[in-house]
Amino acid sequence: MRLKTEILGVESGGRPIVFLNKYDADELGISASGRVLLRSRKDITAIVNVATRSVRKGHVGISEEIRMMLGKVPHYIDVEISSFPKSLQFIRNKLEGKKLVYKEIYEIVKGVVDGNLSENEIASFVTALHIRGLDLDEATSLSMSMVETGARLNLGKRVVDKHSVGGVPGDKTTLLVVPIVAAAGLIIPKTSSRAITSAAGTADRAETIMPVNISNNEMKKIVKKCGGCLVWGGALDLAPADDIFVRTEYSLYIDPLLLPSIMSKKKAVGATHLVVDIPTGRGAKVKTISEADQLAKDIIELGKRLKIHTHCVLTYGEQPIGYTVGPALEAREALEVLMNESNVPDLIDKACNIAGTIFEITGRKNGYELAKNMLKTGRAEAKLRQMIGLQGGNQNIMPDDLPIGSHTLKVKARKEGQVIWINNNAIVEIARSAGAPKDKGAGIVFNKKIGDQVSKDDILFTVYAEKSRKLNRAHDLLEEINPIGVGKRADMVIHTIKESPMIKKSFVLER
Amino acid sequence: MRLKTEILGVESGGRPIVFLNKYDADELGISASGRVLLRSRKDITAIVNVATRSVRKGHVGISEEIRMMLGKVPHYIDVEISSFPKSLQFIRNKLEGKKLVYKEIYEIVKGVVDGNLSENEIASFVTALHIRGLDLDEATSLSMSMVETGARLNLGKRVVDKHSVGGVPGDKTTLLVVPIVAAAGLIIPKTSSRAITSAAGTADRAETIMPVNISNNEMKKIVKKCGGCLVWGGALDLAPADDIFVRTEYSLYIDPLLLPSIMSKKKAVGATHLVVDIPTGRGAKVKTISEADQLAKDIIELGKRLKIHTHCVLTYGEQPIGYTVGPALEAREALEVLMNESNVPDLIDKACNIAGTIFEITGRKNGYELAKNMLKTGRAEAKLRQMIGLQGGNQNIMPDDLPIGSHTLKVKARKEGQVIWINNNAIVEIARSAGAPKDKGAGIVFNKKIGDQVSKDDILFTVYAEKSRKLNRAHDLLEEINPIGVGKRADMVIHTIKESPMIKKSFVLER
Repeated sequence: MRLKTEILGVESGGRPIVFLNKYDADELGISASGRVLLRSRKDITAIVNVATRSVRKGHVGISEEIRMMLGKVPHYIDVEISSFPKSLQFIRNKLEGKKLVYKEIYEIVKGVVDGNLSENEIASFVTALHIRGLDLDEATSLSMSMVETGARLNLGKRVVDKHSVGGVPGDKTTLLVVPIVAAAGLIIPKTSSRAITSAAGTADRAETIMPVNISNNEMKKIVKKCGGCLVWGGALDLAPADDIFVRTEYSLYIDPLLLPSIMSKKKAVGATHLVVDIPTGRGAKVKTISEADQLAKDIIELGKRLKIHTHCVLTYGEQPIGYTVGPALEAREALEVLMNESNVPDLIDKACNIAGTIFEITGRKNGYELAKNMLKTGRAEAKLRQMIGLQGGNQNIMPDDLPIGSHTLKVKARKEGQVIWINNNAIVEIARSAGAPKDKGAGIVFNKKIGDQVSKDDILFTVYAEKSRKLNRAHDLLEEINPIGVGKRADMVIHTIKESPMIKKSFVLER
Repeated sequence: MRLKTEILGVESGGRPIVFLNKYDADELGISASGRVLLRSRKDITAIVNVATRSVRKGHVGISEEIRMMLGKVPHYIDVEISSFPKSLQFIRNKLEGKKLVYKEIYEIVKGVVDGNLSENEIASFVTALHIRGLDLDEATSLSMSMVETGARLNLGKRVVDKHSVGGVPGDKTTLLVVPIVAAAGLIIPKTSSRAITSAAGTADRAETIMPVNISNNEMKKIVKKCGGCLVWGGALDLAPADDIFVRTEYSLYIDPLLLPSIMSKKKAVGATHLVVDIPTGRGAKVKTISEADQLAKDIIELGKRLKIHTHCVLTYGEQPIGYTVGPALEAREALEVLMNESNVPDLIDKACNIAGTIFEITGRKNGYELAKNMLKTGRAEAKLRQMIGLQGGNQNIMPDDLPIGSHTLKVKARKEGQVIWINNNAIVEIARSAGAPKDKGAGIVFNKKIGDQVSKDDILFTVYAEKSRKLNRAHDLLEEINPIGVGKRADMVIHTIKESPMIKKSFVLER
């Protein structure tokens, strides 16, 4: 059917979508979510939205995605019904509990990347993976398919990488690990993500000290020159299927693709040695040590299949790492530690343990000491500054150069005692309500952490915001929730849930 | 956040969708598929699409659905982040295999109808229902929730209805059952659907003899006057959640909501007595008798919970009902039978059995004979003509008044023998390729059915099309597939699948 092309000027989330008038859709014998083939210089498969008013009979409305794929948009385009893709049958097989083989999984992943599968169908596949589970063969197939449907880097025979399963606020460890490892001569092409539900992702933190939106080619040049980089992974087209799966998983809080997601990104950068940090605790993504142990075992097995030597490090995740939460505040803290201007014991211990494990997995002895040495001698700092320069930032940047929000709210102890617990989720909520990660200068600085002695009126932590409106939002939130517990070590009650909840707070607010 | 409203002029499949610029989305702290609250005269919850180019910073693009909900569109609108709806938690619970209670299911169904749940989330729920299954309590809750989130009819203390699980081409039984039942004084407010994957739905058939797009109020008046109606259910807002679930189920070929879908529509029209036809056979939706027996048991149990007295009739579904397939051809055949101008034994038997069961379930004796009597005496025909008049059609319509496609293709026997089998799916494909259900005059007329004796060159069936292009399409398809088997009763082979398939056809084509 020959239809007049109409550019709608709307984006459809990366997927090629056409709008057909109901009349034409009926004429073609196609319903919403069906597929058509657009015959142009190249054939494009698109998913159909049916319009009753907004697109006229005889017209086909195209999304921005299709406009870009077409290049020069023809006045008329031939639209044909397209049969269901094979990948749909494979998704159905997974729904029925059948194990999928590599070829089938590859077809599905390719359908996801090419946009031939609708949101519905992808959501159904992800849900089936969650309920039915996936075994090691399937996880391997998914990882490799995700790698092969994207770009790949090739930076040498031995490439190391690190990853954190995440969930702990203030975790700026990567900002230390990458320069420590590169300073010792290893190759570590680190790609990171931005925050989705957290207060800062590593890419958000790094961006406050240097550009992180770097192309594949530039990245290769940088890594060849200085051994490492700290870039945003989102623009590199590494395992792009992952980003689409994540979008589906997001609101449902499920992540059956956790392992393939981690490992495909690592395989795509050509990693041969990998250390995975699994923060563990009530306030982390992984709650218990036995859960973390099982996850570690699975990650290591999958690593073997993908020919990536993998070690996992279980870390303490009951409270934020270091004293800061929020992109710029965290970058400042990392910079200060690298410059030996500030002593942040838990952050240093964690970074040196992870860097140390990377050293040992690649054959060096006394990894922890080697890592500490890279820090103490300033070689890690020098390496970071070289990296900053190569990525297009100011090599001489100082911690105070990073702007921090000027609106503050002090949270003070109502009574004396000890910090007994910190609620990570509440801390993230407060930092986000104050503007993080969008407002890079927003966040939280702790004066006290778990185990610290507290006197009445001591500042427990300070909230920073760039905009007073957002500080008000954080203030309102703090009236409602209780992110920190101060008391005696023997105090057992966190709070009591009554019919009308009464939260016993151990702090007062002051601006 | 106050944003300038921009009418995008696109429809978003019934769901309220806004497009935000990436900058504003980040500022609000929201990702794609997140939800926002639009503050206007009434609050509207909308699902977010993130745009990078097509919507400018400071603007909010609204879909046609939202434009309609807003009525007068304000120049600016306050957009706030909206938290995840409770229903998402309940969907997650189902994913984890937990049984859902009525309140939880109601929240989900309401979220579906109000558009507060995204396509992803609905697909995930439907998939979870398919894999985890749903028990009778959950099916009851789903049915009732679907009823309560839509319109309801109240037409009297005793209202009867019929339903077919479907899957057999040419099934025009309803066109006979409704006038037979109404002629005997029962109330039967029949709503029907249009074809999605078949060659004709009952609404498509009925539409060739009278208007079927009738409002709730008109429908009530018609039923009060003549006891029955034959209308399209799609515009009546009866159990509207069902239509949305069906859209998700469609491409995945799953239908975990089959029972609630059937029963909610019946409950919404106020049915107290129901007969469900379950066509059974290789060419029907339900393949085996034991499968049909189980389904019947479940339907009857659900009926009890919903206070609908239900009987199920298992019928022969190995070949089309009667001699015609396609909207107008089928309507002609039904009209001829009602006028006693044509004898179509299987159609008459099926219609009288189903109408008869309706009579018996409501307390009458000798239902089959009573039904047959309504047919023979012309009372059913008179009732249909009254109905046609009340629905705005021509009461004196004759079978020949229904236009049939003028392009024909005769399918003739290559050799003598007996019709051994008819492939229903292939018949539907041929009828659809010839233009049905869109072209109402397209379809198939059979001269021979299973068991009939065939001589060489006898016409087996004729394909009708309104457009020669579509007849060509049917012709091409017939070169490829084999919809009918002619041979000796003892011939056991249907066809042989070889590396290069060789289909042994028992027909030749003639135009």
